[in-house]
Amino acid sequence: MRYFDHMATNPLRPEVLDAMMPYLKEEFGNPMSLYALGQKSKKALEEARGQVAALIGAKPQEIIFTASGAEANNMAVRGLAMASKAKGSHIIVSKMEHHSVLNPARMLEKEGFAVTFLPVDKYGMVDPGALEKAITKETVLISVVHASPEVGTIEPVEEIGRIAKKHGVLFHTDAVASAGYLPVDVEALGVSALSLSAHEFYGPKGAGALYLKGGTRIVPLIYGGIQESGRRAGTENIPAIVGMGKAAELAKAGLAERAGKLARLRDRLVAGVLEGIGHVYYTGHPEHRLPGHASFCVEFIEGEAMLLMLAAKGIYAASGSACSSKALKASPVLLSMGISSQLAQGSIVFSLGTDNAEDDIEYAIREFPAVVKRLREISPYAGGWGGVKETGTCIPKN
Amino acid sequence: MRYFDHMATNPLRPEVLDAMMPYLKEEFGNPMSLYALGQKSKKALEEARGQVAALIGAKPQEIIFTASGAEANNMAVRGLAMASKAKGSHIIVSKMEHHSVLNPARMLEKEGFAVTFLPVDKYGMVDPGALEKAITKETVLISVVHASPEVGTIEPVEEIGRIAKKHGVLFHTDAVASAGYLPVDVEALGVSALSLSAHEFYGPKGAGALYLKGGTRIVPLIYGGIQESGRRAGTENIPAIVGMGKAAELAKAGLAERAGKLARLRDRLVAGVLEGIGHVYYTGHPEHRLPGHASFCVEFIEGEAMLLMLAAKGIYAASGSACSSKALKASPVLLSMGISSQLAQGSIVFSLGTDNAEDDIEYAIREFPAVVKRLREISPYAGGWGGVKETGTCIPKN
Repeated sequence: MRYFDHMATNPLRPEVLDAMMPYLKEEFGNPMSLYALGQKSKKALEEARGQVAALIGAKPQEIIFTASGAEANNMAVRGLAMASKAKGSHIIVSKMEHHSVLNPARMLEKEGFAVTFLPVDKYGMVDPGALEKAITKETVLISVVHASPEVGTIEPVEEIGRIAKKHGVLFHTDAVASAGYLPVDVEALGVSALSLSAHEFYGPKGAGALYLKGGTRIVPLIYGGIQESGRRAGTENIPAIVGMGKAAELAKAGLAERAGKLARLRDRLVAGVLEGIGHVYYTGHPEHRLPGHASFCVEFIEGEAMLLMLAAKGIYAASGSACSSKALKASPVLLSMGISSQLAQGSIVFSLGTDNAEDDIEYAIREFPAVVKRLREISPYAGGWGGVKETGTCIPKN
Repeated sequence: MRYFDHMATNPLRPEVLDAMMPYLKEEFGNPMSLYALGQKSKKALEEARGQVAALIGAKPQEIIFTASGAEANNMAVRGLAMASKAKGSHIIVSKMEHHSVLNPARMLEKEGFAVTFLPVDKYGMVDPGALEKAITKETVLISVVHASPEVGTIEPVEEIGRIAKKHGVLFHTDAVASAGYLPVDVEALGVSALSLSAHEFYGPKGAGALYLKGGTRIVPLIYGGIQESGRRAGTENIPAIVGMGKAAELAKAGLAERAGKLARLRDRLVAGVLEGIGHVYYTGHPEHRLPGHASFCVEFIEGEAMLLMLAAKGIYAASGSACSSKALKASPVLLSMGISSQLAQGSIVFSLGTDNAEDDIEYAIREFPAVVKRLREISPYAGGWGGVKETGTCIPKN
């Protein structure tokens, strides 16, 4: 198996599983309980909170644990907008956002909020100037992803943070794809809220977090008990939270070195793919992008067929976002970058991880062109499109 | 350690952890991914869905996995009410409900819904006749807990199900405390929706489910990807879901025998406590109650002090709901049963589990009276209340 789908999910690091095991066994107490068994869980919970806070330069009390990045995004968009309703009813989200930001924004729109879905350029980059122009007196929240899991583009979050601060508007960023791969510092980014997902940085599934800057009001998404200072109810998933803490600690250590290695592997992959395959487009920003992220649109063929044929050769990659891989619709993110819906059908994402070696890359570079060649021979698109096109709406290969 | 707090949480059964382990290790794929690694997770997800469905007599496609019972309750109350808004804007919830039902109901009230908080009798029992009278043409949803985790009372859910059906009103029950302890059959109960939490029946934390009867419309709580048929976004927590499935399978097997054992232990505990301690009240219904559930109000003393002194003797019990144990307010459930706020301060819950043996019970019966005696000697309440009172608003000991 050559696994190139680290944006979809990651294996647990062995140290993470080791940290979790006691809490899957004898240390099963509920942290709300007063006796020693419960208090040990409480201590583990607070230690993990500190570890996650440290990863992003936050204070422990600014971390709210959730069960996923999607939950954190929903909580941020809906919860911050609802808490600011008295102040105004306009929010701005970029067209690069994940469905877990876009769809809550659409719900708010149905409930009377005005929502600006901010366009992006052909690299999938938000224009801070355009964003500033979109701010009105009614604007209460901006949400722009830190880096896109679909095309890897890193957004100008620091600049947006300064603009948001200048206008007194709350600013949320979805750092699910970037944490553990890019330095993420909430002060430097200037955010009021930031979403994390543990399994994106080799932590467990079922653990996410919302950073919420001290003093920021939010309406909860899940009501009930007084867990997480009354902001997120439900018995704390201690094993997963402990795993998230450990994964955060490991993600913080040696980040620059890891990112350097991933970028080198990625650059080799990109060069090999662009060299070996004709009519292929490297999507997203060529430089301002996640270190291990290589995304393409391959003309005349269809992503799912590519994935299946690659899988048959032991190469596991993705076609756009894992969360909508079966939705069979052209990715809204690719469309927002001006890529045609037909070309978007041929999208493929290789997201590298620390377990990938040079050998994996060379194998992919060898096998991928053969798969594309075979599919083009049988593709109904090739004829329908009138054969070869040399230009495209996204980044041409040269 | 003598653990009598199985309503707060439970250890994983070894078989459950065994079932989870492969998914915490090599089988880490995202079920949305097309390649074999992903499809193995998908298969495990669907197998678990079948196991959970089988526990409650549902169809697999009627199970929506969540991260907790609290999330399932929030999703049910808010999601069903919002989906039925065009039909009417009145809902009925009983005063026995968990905060994760009560608080979403209060939020709906703020947003324009009319909410009836239905009173209960001194046993904490809902009167189906009173409930039927509360139904108006605007009523779209009834939510009544199957069995109370605080006082153990089993509500007349079947009868309420018939009433709901007769009036064409959706009916949700919170079966978090009952599943695995009582037979739970969605057809027999006549419910449209039912909440479950895995760690309540020896499954993992971080896994819950909402049963939603086929054809019932619901507004999601967490938007994003198309997981769970678009009704609950977020990468599926496969290890926890697999654990929930296995726990459901184990909970189903030998339920009657287990419940019989728990009821015998519970009856011995109750008899011992009522015999050994004066001015103690057995709360909740004396017969229609969860088999392993013994709850009391002890006069002249305060729950937290009792818990701490019992803990020092290795006896782990709870004071009311784990989710609000630190809220330091008298339990609304006890107050709704007519128990005074002062007496409610002395509440204590022993919830037994399959790991409890007769020896644990005998130990508790021996030690508990000594703790009460010691606390009463130093209690400020004893004098303040003018010494001994022989009657109370809840169930007297004789």
